[in-house]
Amino acid sequence: MSVVKVGVNGFGTIGRRVALAITLQKDMKLVGVVKRTPDYAALYAASRGIPIYTPTAKEAEEFEKRGIKVGGTLRELLARVDVIVDATPEGQGAKNKPLYREAGVKQVYQGGEKPEVAEASFSTLCNYEESKGRGSLRVVSCNTTGLLRLICTLNREFGVESVRAVLVRRGADPKEVKKGPIDSIVLNPPTLPSHHAVDVRTVLPWLDIKTAAVAVPTTFMHMHHVTLKLAKPVERREVLETLASAPRIMLVSSGDTGIKSTSQLVDAARLSRMGYDIPELVVFEESVAVDGREVMLFQAVHQESIVVPENIDAIRAVASSPLTLDETLKATDGSLGLRKTLW
Amino acid sequence: MSVVKVGVNGFGTIGRRVALAITLQKDMKLVGVVKRTPDYAALYAASRGIPIYTPTAKEAEEFEKRGIKVGGTLRELLARVDVIVDATPEGQGAKNKPLYREAGVKQVYQGGEKPEVAEASFSTLCNYEESKGRGSLRVVSCNTTGLLRLICTLNREFGVESVRAVLVRRGADPKEVKKGPIDSIVLNPPTLPSHHAVDVRTVLPWLDIKTAAVAVPTTFMHMHHVTLKLAKPVERREVLETLASAPRIMLVSSGDTGIKSTSQLVDAARLSRMGYDIPELVVFEESVAVDGREVMLFQAVHQESIVVPENIDAIRAVASSPLTLDETLKATDGSLGLRKTLW
Repeated sequence: MSVVKVGVNGFGTIGRRVALAITLQKDMKLVGVVKRTPDYAALYAASRGIPIYTPTAKEAEEFEKRGIKVGGTLRELLARVDVIVDATPEGQGAKNKPLYREAGVKQVYQGGEKPEVAEASFSTLCNYEESKGRGSLRVVSCNTTGLLRLICTLNREFGVESVRAVLVRRGADPKEVKKGPIDSIVLNPPTLPSHHAVDVRTVLPWLDIKTAAVAVPTTFMHMHHVTLKLAKPVERREVLETLASAPRIMLVSSGDTGIKSTSQLVDAARLSRMGYDIPELVVFEESVAVDGREVMLFQAVHQESIVVPENIDAIRAVASSPLTLDETLKATDGSLGLRKTLW
Repeated sequence: MSVVKVGVNGFGTIGRRVALAITLQKDMKLVGVVKRTPDYAALYAASRGIPIYTPTAKEAEEFEKRGIKVGGTLRELLARVDVIVDATPEGQGAKNKPLYREAGVKQVYQGGEKPEVAEASFSTLCNYEESKGRGSLRVVSCNTTGLLRLICTLNREFGVESVRAVLVRRGADPKEVKKGPIDSIVLNPPTLPSHHAVDVRTVLPWLDIKTAAVAVPTTFMHMHHVTLKLAKPVERREVLETLASAPRIMLVSSGDTGIKSTSQLVDAARLSRMGYDIPELVVFEESVAVDGREVMLFQAVHQESIVVPENIDAIRAVASSPLTLDETLKATDGSLGLRKTLW
């Protein structure tokens, strides 16, 4: 098997997880990560033997002072990789793009970038096969990834005509100590629809979808309430069976487990998982209500980790991997330990 | 004008507000309130000269110890009133009902009670006229009151065929120090639909409505995202005009005011209002999106005060008041200072 050489620019919430996930793939090699400041995440990367690069030569000195060896600059990293995953802060990816193109490397961007940054927006279950060979892909954001996993799963089985979703977003990630709110429900944004509907249509341009979002004082996960209109009437049992057998979706029964909130879900994950990451989309079984063509449900999205499997698949797609959809799902989800049940 | 003699059983979140509102009505007299414990709210009532009664004679001693004069027992209060407003904790109203009936007084219950507690459920803009002369009414809960004000306003103007709503509920009121959550999004309940749809149908049995609810870590207000399907296509301008001219609904522009959250709304109310109560239903102007027959919007509900005007109207209804709908709206909203704009 040929091995794809990958670099990750940025070692924040997403970058660190994608970098570690790359190290678990048989068909990929993590050449290095780019870090701007020698903080605790840099110390961790060094402790794990992950080669660290800096944006330019001038940041390297601070790393060396702390005893962190630096492998070179971003430009030097780009000369050594086939694919760069850009996990820099929102909007920075577009600024980095000329450098990537100059180096002739394939690019994977995150959902914080505008769609125009890449040749196409990407979500594995929706468009893995047709994304192969693209020069650049943009993995849609966590909320959009959660919506697309559900929509493409149900669309393949039943056909989806329209989607209405209300997103109750976590206010900040645990490490974001300067973000709020701490006692408010914030319209995010106050106009309708929210950008998530627009973002879903970067992958499914034909879909009638409208979304609205609020931000609330919690750090653990987002919660979506989704209403889908299917192409034909279905039985609740059929929807549950489809979700139960679909990749990257986990059905959790509140009745069987007592879990009926994001924090209890995370508490369960803390029993058995690395840093309580939940890369699966979690659908609450009892919330699935079906009335003719109308399906309603609650789903929880772990904002820090849900896009990691899709990033791995996107690397394969831009690298024109021989792996099929089923094979990349098996390789990615197997290596990252995705599950269909809590344990 | 004949004056209705009213007692209020319970002096908690709703009871205290309804009691104070009664003192502002020309056609009502507050005979007394029933309080179980001599806490700060009892001290406040005494300081305002509101006659205090106790459930039975045995609670009176603790009040007297604190220098709070007690006017008698609940049974004695009932002998002196035409109407009793039951604002006791959820489910207690049904237990009190036999006592009220024995005394031959008309009854107004709160939304925490089951619908069967009263002859009919009540919401002023939906069914004031046909509620007149009932022996008992149940004022629906804060969330249901918010939904019904919107639905009945749009239904009168355009006809409403169906409603889908997602309720993001405040976790607790400011004084509820033992309730959560403080870092979670809780499905409330994990099954669909939530009881709010059922409750709306106690007033509008013909309506196709489904609701879902989550509780989040905030104390100020609930936030609803509502999707309505009207009987005919409308222009956004028509919807805004209808909301702008409707009683008990306030349109707030995020663009003009910078207010895009519950906490900013409350902060604005703190500038000019009694205890920051917002008895109006607040609709966020920029959130109103119209597409043919589909109307979507965000609305905020102040859980502690929104049902107070409806309680006053319900007293008039059970007392067979000569006031028409327009007259009770004018009397109630004028005396309580309801506004169409923030100040």
